[in-house]
Amino acid sequence: MIMPMTKRHGETGDYCLPGNIAIYNGRISGVGNISEDGDFDRIIDASGCVALPGFVNTHTHAAMTLFRSYADDLPLMEWLNTKIWPIEAILTGPDIYWGTMLCILEMIKSGTTVFADMYDFMDDVARAVDESGIRAVLSRGMIGVAPNGERALQESVQFIKNWHGKAGERITAMLGPHAPYTCPPEYLKKVMKYAEELEVGIHIHLAETLAEIGEIEKAYGTRPVQLMNNIGLFEYPVLGAHLVHVNTQEIEILAAKKVGVAHNPQSNMKLASGIAPVPEMLKKGIPVALGTDGASSNNNLDMMEEMRSASLLHKVSTMDPTTIPAYQALEMATRNGAEALKMDGDIGQISVGKKADIILIDFHKPHLYPMHDVAAHLVYSAQSADVKTVIVDGRVIMENRQVLTLDEERILYEAEKCAKRLVKAVG
Amino acid sequence: MIMPMTKRHGETGDYCLPGNIAIYNGRISGVGNISEDGDFDRIIDASGCVALPGFVNTHTHAAMTLFRSYADDLPLMEWLNTKIWPIEAILTGPDIYWGTMLCILEMIKSGTTVFADMYDFMDDVARAVDESGIRAVLSRGMIGVAPNGERALQESVQFIKNWHGKAGERITAMLGPHAPYTCPPEYLKKVMKYAEELEVGIHIHLAETLAEIGEIEKAYGTRPVQLMNNIGLFEYPVLGAHLVHVNTQEIEILAAKKVGVAHNPQSNMKLASGIAPVPEMLKKGIPVALGTDGASSNNNLDMMEEMRSASLLHKVSTMDPTTIPAYQALEMATRNGAEALKMDGDIGQISVGKKADIILIDFHKPHLYPMHDVAAHLVYSAQSADVKTVIVDGRVIMENRQVLTLDEERILYEAEKCAKRLVKAVG
Repeated sequence: MIMPMTKRHGETGDYCLPGNIAIYNGRISGVGNISEDGDFDRIIDASGCVALPGFVNTHTHAAMTLFRSYADDLPLMEWLNTKIWPIEAILTGPDIYWGTMLCILEMIKSGTTVFADMYDFMDDVARAVDESGIRAVLSRGMIGVAPNGERALQESVQFIKNWHGKAGERITAMLGPHAPYTCPPEYLKKVMKYAEELEVGIHIHLAETLAEIGEIEKAYGTRPVQLMNNIGLFEYPVLGAHLVHVNTQEIEILAAKKVGVAHNPQSNMKLASGIAPVPEMLKKGIPVALGTDGASSNNNLDMMEEMRSASLLHKVSTMDPTTIPAYQALEMATRNGAEALKMDGDIGQISVGKKADIILIDFHKPHLYPMHDVAAHLVYSAQSADVKTVIVDGRVIMENRQVLTLDEERILYEAEKCAKRLVKAVG
Repeated sequence: MIMPMTKRHGETGDYCLPGNIAIYNGRISGVGNISEDGDFDRIIDASGCVALPGFVNTHTHAAMTLFRSYADDLPLMEWLNTKIWPIEAILTGPDIYWGTMLCILEMIKSGTTVFADMYDFMDDVARAVDESGIRAVLSRGMIGVAPNGERALQESVQFIKNWHGKAGERITAMLGPHAPYTCPPEYLKKVMKYAEELEVGIHIHLAETLAEIGEIEKAYGTRPVQLMNNIGLFEYPVLGAHLVHVNTQEIEILAAKKVGVAHNPQSNMKLASGIAPVPEMLKKGIPVALGTDGASSNNNLDMMEEMRSASLLHKVSTMDPTTIPAYQALEMATRNGAEALKMDGDIGQISVGKKADIILIDFHKPHLYPMHDVAAHLVYSAQSADVKTVIVDGRVIMENRQVLTLDEERILYEAEKCAKRLVKAVG
């Protein structure tokens, strides 16, 4: 049965219910009423399901999945100083590989088809992305003030040369200066030079905590977003993570410079970083996207939860139940994510010509009955276990909840082993 | 393999990992090292799983599950006036029965073993509870200012006489005056008289919105909690839902009078009611419990989400990441719930002598690896689809995610049919 796509909220290509999707050469070649004469390699039958663009997780640290539930309910600096930094210091390439594999496994099973990562040992991360079939935007995290700041920059350049556009074009590389308080302006200027030279974007944490605001104000007499604008960072394609503490003037800058904003509601809540002014940013036309942050501060990689938390948090924080309605939360997790990653030409919507990054949600569940509104069900009722099928670049990588590209049992075993060894090593 | 129960956080009986649980005559007769000579009808093998007391959902309106996704993202009064009240006005007994069945099906599948309900057509609700095997605390909602206020009171009395202690003692009946702004003091005094006579508790909405505070202050010159205390309501066992807008003095009253508090974080966020001072209430020794509220303002009945939302919301609202740590959120969803319902002698913990209301969580999931801390996994990472087995009153009512007492397909079909007919009828 072929059914016309249901268009909602005056926009095209959001989702179809139920419908078929034709795929040709990795891209969507037809949606809804598909002509039998058209070009297609495969037709996805979405009967009984709702098809969505795959979720776009715009900010994470994949291998930190090894530290899930290792350290919780602690003040930020105690968490970093006594738990996270000591264990990060002894990570090896294989740890990163298996930690990233565990992260990717969980992301695929919860409907994420592309993620933006910032971490270390990025060759191992890229290898995991390549093997799993997922799409990723990868950056080697760089701490400018660290002894290895220069080496990290050179490793970044080498990583970009090795991996940008690789894995069947599923890997995009970016530069990953950690944050304004760890990367001073002179260091960021070198980053900008390479961004120019290599034609890649920049992924950076911005204005996450009040402590950061204070530190930057003390050192430079201005706030992080303003400082980044002053040094010219926003003349390059920037993906900014968090943007919790931004004022009206800074929101204007972010909008004018088309900075991609990765909002991480659950991480911001769990670390008590603060509540980002997301409704104001959306009103100014900033396509605010969603991210999970690392699993050690979330503690999962579930974009459905991020949609729900974004909508509910900002409703109560504005005391206005009309804030971030369901369809807008869905857009944040899909189309806005694509825009924040500067990939909206290729992904983020189900429409002809876009790359076939598609997920099917099984609606035959008690918590998704009765059916009055699809978007409300997806944002307020669904859970990630309802994701049934995941397609990336036209390839089915999960079918009926079985991940076809990965050995799930092996990954759980190896990741557990790495985690146990690391914990034992730090005592 | 029989393993000793893992005790954590200085308390007993929270959960065991992995372990066995012996059940005799509906109650727990052994935990951990179970003697083969002891009395038991059944031993639950929890290997590879984590056993928890079943979740206690302390506030819902079960049949409103029919209105899930029917009306969202609206201002409260518009939502009630234009959507909820018109459709509630045409509900029939069969609607209530199938709506409640859908609710119970979802609750069992997400690990809830007892729920506190306030609605109409309570004979139909009680019948659904009886058939499904779940435990419930039921009250006929009463609007004192409505034309049928007196009739509702008489129906309540009759319902209590018919159903209190029935369904193998799984049903507890309460009186359900809706709220201070719909039930004036003279009406509540009649309710109190019946509470005395019938020896039952009182389930009431309290201090949910700022509008309510304003209305009560205007009418009585005081605030809702103070008003209830003044008229003597708290001399009876009271289950108060919401308690969002309470000041320090009112928190003292709630603590002194041992009022059960049902905190509904997702409903309060979605309706933008406000943020309840839960950390202060917990500090004063009030055993704040959790509830989902009805599925039309949530939009699911998932207690794992309520645990997570409670912990995350209060961390960010206090700007303190140590607020409501994982084990405390777990207690809120289990032991505190039992206490709020005045059932802590019987349920809320896994320990010898308690009724066997137990759930098993399957931890062999990517999002629950690696294992550093059980409580953190349960509160920050797990999802309700991880609930594998549900036992109520010693009877297995869900095994390997199959609900043994209910016809799932029939319920989905009938609930959808009722919902469609209702929507069509209101135009």
